[in-house]
Amino acid sequence: MSNPIVVEVMRGARVESHHRGAGAVVDADGAVAVRFGEIDEPVFPRSAVKALQSLPLVESGAVYALRLSEAEIALACASHSGAAAHVETATAMLAKAGLDAASLACGAHWPVGEDASRALARAGQAPSSLHNNCSGKHAGFLCLACASGWEPRGYEHAEHPVQRAVKAAIEDVTGAAHGEDVCATDGCSIPTYAVPLRALARGFARLATGVGQAPRRAAAARRIFAAVAANPAMVAGEGRFDTEVMRLFGPRVFVKTGAEGVYCAALPELGLGLAVKADDGATRAAQAMIATLICGLLPVDGDDRARLGPFAAPVLRNWNGVAVGSLRPAGPLQAPLA
Amino acid sequence: MSNPIVVEVMRGARVESHHRGAGAVVDADGAVAVRFGEIDEPVFPRSAVKALQSLPLVESGAVYALRLSEAEIALACASHSGAAAHVETATAMLAKAGLDAASLACGAHWPVGEDASRALARAGQAPSSLHNNCSGKHAGFLCLACASGWEPRGYEHAEHPVQRAVKAAIEDVTGAAHGEDVCATDGCSIPTYAVPLRALARGFARLATGVGQAPRRAAAARRIFAAVAANPAMVAGEGRFDTEVMRLFGPRVFVKTGAEGVYCAALPELGLGLAVKADDGATRAAQAMIATLICGLLPVDGDDRARLGPFAAPVLRNWNGVAVGSLRPAGPLQAPLA
Repeated sequence: MSNPIVVEVMRGARVESHHRGAGAVVDADGAVAVRFGEIDEPVFPRSAVKALQSLPLVESGAVYALRLSEAEIALACASHSGAAAHVETATAMLAKAGLDAASLACGAHWPVGEDASRALARAGQAPSSLHNNCSGKHAGFLCLACASGWEPRGYEHAEHPVQRAVKAAIEDVTGAAHGEDVCATDGCSIPTYAVPLRALARGFARLATGVGQAPRRAAAARRIFAAVAANPAMVAGEGRFDTEVMRLFGPRVFVKTGAEGVYCAALPELGLGLAVKADDGATRAAQAMIATLICGLLPVDGDDRARLGPFAAPVLRNWNGVAVGSLRPAGPLQAPLA
Repeated sequence: MSNPIVVEVMRGARVESHHRGAGAVVDADGAVAVRFGEIDEPVFPRSAVKALQSLPLVESGAVYALRLSEAEIALACASHSGAAAHVETATAMLAKAGLDAASLACGAHWPVGEDASRALARAGQAPSSLHNNCSGKHAGFLCLACASGWEPRGYEHAEHPVQRAVKAAIEDVTGAAHGEDVCATDGCSIPTYAVPLRALARGFARLATGVGQAPRRAAAARRIFAAVAANPAMVAGEGRFDTEVMRLFGPRVFVKTGAEGVYCAALPELGLGLAVKADDGATRAAQAMIATLICGLLPVDGDDRARLGPFAAPVLRNWNGVAVGSLRPAGPLQAPLA
């Protein structure tokens, strides 16, 4: 059985390409508000669970011991653009742990943000591991290790106490077993565990509401969501969907992208968690899916709807700025709440 | 009915994403050697038909009148990386028509090639329309207009003699009607007409063999294929699939990418044309598809197979160079000739 077509890519009056996918909107008790496609087959959430991966950093007390700022906590949850502010913040986090970029195991790549990438080239520089979109998360792992008295070296390996703590937290929040059979290696060299969309969505609903969570974890989740809401530019970067949507809605929407077409989100006022995956791994499709769901679920006024709409159904323009097509929600996403 | 899964994206031992698609391998008489998925529904070939779009430039005699070089003819068929050599060649073509970059209607964008893009940024420059990956094709259109005594302005519009000549040539070669119902606007502002994969594949087979072609067109096609084979770096750029494959096989393989997951190819010694489209528009899938078909069809020795194989089933490495997964042909592409 195949997942339904959820996004169509129009050129002129014709469908040029299309994307299939699956999605789940679930509350903290597991009641499903919206579902389409296969939601019980494990998928790699990749960076979409960075907020969950930062739970041990906060609930261990490491953020207090090292006096991490709200912006630094937000960066620990980020797939950042590699702009100067991101690099400086990651550097500051490492300094608080008594470390520097040499300790990062994420590898170097040119900044994800095109402007940041060109600025670096223009300055005649090459990227370091600080520019890696995951450097904040890795700096957070190192802070956790140092504050906990663990040897920081090897923190990226599955058997290190850092990754064991991360795995235990996400297993607990999602209720999905993190066995060897669902484990692979992420782009930044840490383990990634495949989790069903239903469990991911429920996990974000539980964190956003605190339902079923121990007080320490509920408090950590509140702190993480608040830090991200207050620093939307830390979590992605200027012009990017995650940053722009959270800047628009503040604490009303948490949203996080993951590689290969994954998005997770939470709508605290509705007590809902969301998770989607484009079958083909396309970010443009996952973004249109999650924007369509948020647009359909969240009670928003006309102005905010007008600002969110273009993310759900973006107009495609060519190099002369002429509109040549668009993305449009299809199938179950034409009326996701019907 | 949905197209079959043709490429799987593995992470560790699990399928992380997958791509569906369709493809046709056809000879000049229309006999189908390989087919999978829907091949009779029109799809936009985009830049995959640039070699066909350059037919009027050659068969009109404009290339002779303006003394265009082989490299310049190859650039007219290119989606180039925007490297210095591409920009210089496009500039030279325009000069031969008595024009400059101001006449180009393709619009400006940062070079497709990452190295070229960074080199431009490092030099403190901004991109011009010469860096547009289509600038060679557009320079060719302008050469055609000038050599034909047509007003060059407006050459990008469907009603201009340049686009009428291009449309007539591709209609004739593919046998597919180019009506209003299949017309939209391409990224570089010229019309693009949707054509079934079967007709695209047959068109490339006819051009590669000359079968059923008037002598003037057959000669033009020979000149175009020879120019591309002699200048593979003009057609795409260093490290890119089209360039590397044609550098490897010379005139034995013609291959050209198009946006939104299209590839066209010709294997002259077998008298075959090929056309594939990934449903979701992913280039990585289209490239794996066309590489798998070429690998399966072309009699090549072990060394060449070893060099082509990684394009059909590339290993995915993370930022530390660690192999974390791969693309692999699936379904009908596991044994495309069976």
